[in-house]
Amino acid sequence: MAIHYPNGSSYKVSTNKSLKKNHNDKHSHHKLTIYGDRGMTLEQEINDSNNYYLHKNIAVIHKKPTPVQIVKVDYPKRSAAVIKEAYFRKASTTDYNGVYRGKYIDFDAKETKNKISFPLANFHKHQVEHMRQCVQQGGLCFALIKFVQTDELFLFKATDLFTYWDNQFNGGKKSIKKDIIKKLGINIQYSLNPTIPYLKAVDKLLNSKGES
Amino acid sequence: MAIHYPNGSSYKVSTNKSLKKNHNDKHSHHKLTIYGDRGMTLEQEINDSNNYYLHKNIAVIHKKPTPVQIVKVDYPKRSAAVIKEAYFRKASTTDYNGVYRGKYIDFDAKETKNKISFPLANFHKHQVEHMRQCVQQGGLCFALIKFVQTDELFLFKATDLFTYWDNQFNGGKKSIKKDIIKKLGINIQYSLNPTIPYLKAVDKLLNSKGES
Repeated sequence: MAIHYPNGSSYKVSTNKSLKKNHNDKHSHHKLTIYGDRGMTLEQEINDSNNYYLHKNIAVIHKKPTPVQIVKVDYPKRSAAVIKEAYFRKASTTDYNGVYRGKYIDFDAKETKNKISFPLANFHKHQVEHMRQCVQQGGLCFALIKFVQTDELFLFKATDLFTYWDNQFNGGKKSIKKDIIKKLGINIQYSLNPTIPYLKAVDKLLNSKGES
Repeated sequence: MAIHYPNGSSYKVSTNKSLKKNHNDKHSHHKLTIYGDRGMTLEQEINDSNNYYLHKNIAVIHKKPTPVQIVKVDYPKRSAAVIKEAYFRKASTTDYNGVYRGKYIDFDAKETKNKISFPLANFHKHQVEHMRQCVQQGGLCFALIKFVQTDELFLFKATDLFTYWDNQFNGGKKSIKKDIIKKLGINIQYSLNPTIPYLKAVDKLLNSKGES
């Protein structure tokens, strides 16, 4: 069975029966899982991995819905309400949060085409402030940073991000060198299932002293 | 200064300067806080309280955006993108989550006009399943249940909810008597600031053994 995506490329899709077995909910839909890193966006890869973690009872982490300001809604007879006018709002938080090993997890995912450094402009001020607030409450916060040209993915601790974020307003650089992200961050290797085993990197954080 | 709401009623509004003082972020907007329970919906009351907790650096708890399936977007020249067709989707999680005292907090808020019992149909199956998954990962989950006729508000633990939820499929009642909610839940008294001091009730849960 092959699914053809808009760009014409084809993906191998497999129904994951082992998930079914471990899942308590009899009424759950039969899930399709797309394996590997074959043109998926980082967001798709993370959603895919979160689905895996959810159905394996490993963690409950969801992407938040896109914030939308709804202005006009039609209520046609005998069919669903249709939103006729709405606008995108800026998110005041990060995109992902949830619970893992009893810990509050909060992160955002960023891709860059830049080969040697990560531009800090990828973050909104609100997102960084949100992470700062969460860290203060004992949450575990980080960024997943992907260098798309080389398919390299890193977990970068929020506390490290704060240092570089703040520095840019004190004469520091407006980007973080990839070498620094390599050194301070945790490299995440793509795998079959989950696509992005980022909770392994979270384990390293939780097991070390310098967490969050 | 008075704000007139669509229903014509007027609310006393006060600029809360003490929030300003305790807030580290110099760039934060000057917040207006509406005090007390004067016709606000439960959602407004909770958002209001969450704002208070956020700016006092007590907890970071947000309402998730309404999930919307976007079908058609227009990109007019020189102005913001307009969503022209979209549909409401069912939420697969609860509405509120965040972090408090290092704990993952997850809850939903429900109002009922019923005077003597709370109909379980107020919950979607997905929301209950989501809470079950969160509890399993060590999260603290509950419902805020408001009897609007009498302005009575209770924190009701998810683990208690599960009992009554599951019972309804085994010949049990489709609702929970208010007396039971009074007995098992924690009453929350409305206050000036925050409107709903529900984290006091959470403290009781966290300080007791039978948490979550």
